[in-house]
Amino acid sequence: MGKHIIMTALALILLAAGMPAASAEAAPKQAPPPLIIQEQGSFAAGGTVIPAREAYSPLKPRAAGQTLRGDHAAVFYQKPVDARKYPLVFLHGAGQSARTWASTPDGREGFQNIFLRRGYSVYLVDQPRRGEAGRSTVSMNVEATPDEQFWFGQFRMGLWPNFFENTQFARGNEALDQFFRQMTPNTGPYDADIVADSMAALFGAIGSGVLVTHSQGCGPGWLTAMKSSNVRGIVAYEPGSGFIFPEGEAPEPIANSSSFGALRAGEAPLEQFMALTRIPIVIYYGDNIPAAPVSQPHQDYWRAALRMARLWADAVNRHGGNAAVIHLPEAGLIGNTHFPFSDLNNEKVAEHLAKWLHEKGLD
Amino acid sequence: MGKHIIMTALALILLAAGMPAASAEAAPKQAPPPLIIQEQGSFAAGGTVIPAREAYSPLKPRAAGQTLRGDHAAVFYQKPVDARKYPLVFLHGAGQSARTWASTPDGREGFQNIFLRRGYSVYLVDQPRRGEAGRSTVSMNVEATPDEQFWFGQFRMGLWPNFFENTQFARGNEALDQFFRQMTPNTGPYDADIVADSMAALFGAIGSGVLVTHSQGCGPGWLTAMKSSNVRGIVAYEPGSGFIFPEGEAPEPIANSSSFGALRAGEAPLEQFMALTRIPIVIYYGDNIPAAPVSQPHQDYWRAALRMARLWADAVNRHGGNAAVIHLPEAGLIGNTHFPFSDLNNEKVAEHLAKWLHEKGLD
Repeated sequence: MGKHIIMTALALILLAAGMPAASAEAAPKQAPPPLIIQEQGSFAAGGTVIPAREAYSPLKPRAAGQTLRGDHAAVFYQKPVDARKYPLVFLHGAGQSARTWASTPDGREGFQNIFLRRGYSVYLVDQPRRGEAGRSTVSMNVEATPDEQFWFGQFRMGLWPNFFENTQFARGNEALDQFFRQMTPNTGPYDADIVADSMAALFGAIGSGVLVTHSQGCGPGWLTAMKSSNVRGIVAYEPGSGFIFPEGEAPEPIANSSSFGALRAGEAPLEQFMALTRIPIVIYYGDNIPAAPVSQPHQDYWRAALRMARLWADAVNRHGGNAAVIHLPEAGLIGNTHFPFSDLNNEKVAEHLAKWLHEKGLD
Repeated sequence: MGKHIIMTALALILLAAGMPAASAEAAPKQAPPPLIIQEQGSFAAGGTVIPAREAYSPLKPRAAGQTLRGDHAAVFYQKPVDARKYPLVFLHGAGQSARTWASTPDGREGFQNIFLRRGYSVYLVDQPRRGEAGRSTVSMNVEATPDEQFWFGQFRMGLWPNFFENTQFARGNEALDQFFRQMTPNTGPYDADIVADSMAALFGAIGSGVLVTHSQGCGPGWLTAMKSSNVRGIVAYEPGSGFIFPEGEAPEPIANSSSFGALRAGEAPLEQFMALTRIPIVIYYGDNIPAAPVSQPHQDYWRAALRMARLWADAVNRHGGNAAVIHLPEAGLIGNTHFPFSDLNNEKVAEHLAKWLHEKGLD
């Protein structure tokens, strides 16, 4: 073991010095340097228990004599050596799992590896009733309903069957096939409060960190920060519904041509809302979001979402907070889909985030 | 980046030399050495597509105008630097996912980390219609039915509410809570052939490797080796049903007192079966399996399974194969449950497997 580590260490020094390593197989010229992981593992966070109502008999097992644990989050974490102070805790969006942050659909490194290489510990979550956290305390039918063309539009890859001219999604069937196979269904009714409870339990277990959310996950993300002061910053990629204003301050629903109907905001008591004014927050949106209403429902939804996000950031800042909305095209990043963190330019998207984390003292 | 790598490399050399590293935080005395990962990522393997039957309209999205990809496996892999020739490909059992090989319920390292440290590349699978591979081409109701006391008995931790005296499962509520939260349901009907098809696709993508299966996963494991000559060896932990004999050679069903009924074997044409005679196979069983029939249904099931496994190994060897059944107590390993690879003595269980891999030239 000791000899193996020394050989590895010497290979790393050669790599760092730009010299070819002794073994071409161990370190191909094009390959990125190895990840040096101090610790990695998996655990469940939060959740509830349905209690037993009678004694258990192995000869006649009945549900009433048994318990069921469910509604927890499943977490995989990796800590690099000499990790930065705050870990990044990643919460996926609708129909997704922890895999959304792993390899990109076209096989490049996603935010999991990118931020490990930047020295951050990463926690990848499957939210309650999704993926490897599938045990739910409420039954649900999982429908095998074809829906991929809808998501192709809703996720702003293009208008089926055509990609947008400027798309940052890798064209071709292979990446699209991998993308759709990244999707995974709810195994129980979606419940933002249950997700937030498990996330708050996770932050309770690991201490302070920065929460990185996507799409549907952004709603529970705001709730998590209201439940746990260990959330020291929030990075939200493309929130749709789920914005929470102080009571009496929610704007009118924003009409749009999507099948989801007008985009509505939620409300919470001011005291709870104020938690969101005590931490830095950045919200990112990608490209191909129209500035004015359009009849194409998939894109029009995101026009409404971006407008709501700006109203929400105004509300946070009006109450003394520190929230920013970054529309990536205005920052020079063109063609991003609903998944900027796995798009072809995701290294640049990560670079933008790394700078923000540095500016806010979160690195 | 280069400086970070050099500092890491120097820290590793100090570690290997048994000297305290400069930073106590980076290398606590009790912590195992870092994992040096050359490459890690995620992808989907295999699967099918429900085709669209009409054109898609974004204004009126209908299922008939859309596709659905499902029935693939989801795979997370890690390759250590200077990896051994054959990766280990891990397939979980019933109600489990890739997490079964990650951290143990009591928070120690599982086979994922243990075999990475031993220099093996590891591929952790969520089988089709389970965990992060949840998209199924067939609908299914996920029932939230309390069943934990049944599994406590069936997995031979003990007889609820008591652990077996000699158990290798960490006593106490915390580990048990984590164990049950490791479970995750099917999101579509269980189908051994669909699982095996995805596993064969995985071996087609990655080349030769050793397949490590558990419980329900062992059945699709035998089928995988019949479908892919890239399976160079099989390690099966506690197979129950799913053994496949040559046509005309299946033994009589083995009566037992479990609610599953008599344990039945499957059959396949001799030509397909012969694939299982061309690779080394080892089958492991844990402890607390009675030698003679007992009325306690949970344990009696495994008496039948162990007997079937021995009949099956005899059939393989009769046809010129190389299969062994290891009952762990006979090898001096006492108290193992249905999950030897995550039990308290899992380092010893791994050591036994490592020796077997070495003996068979698979390391």
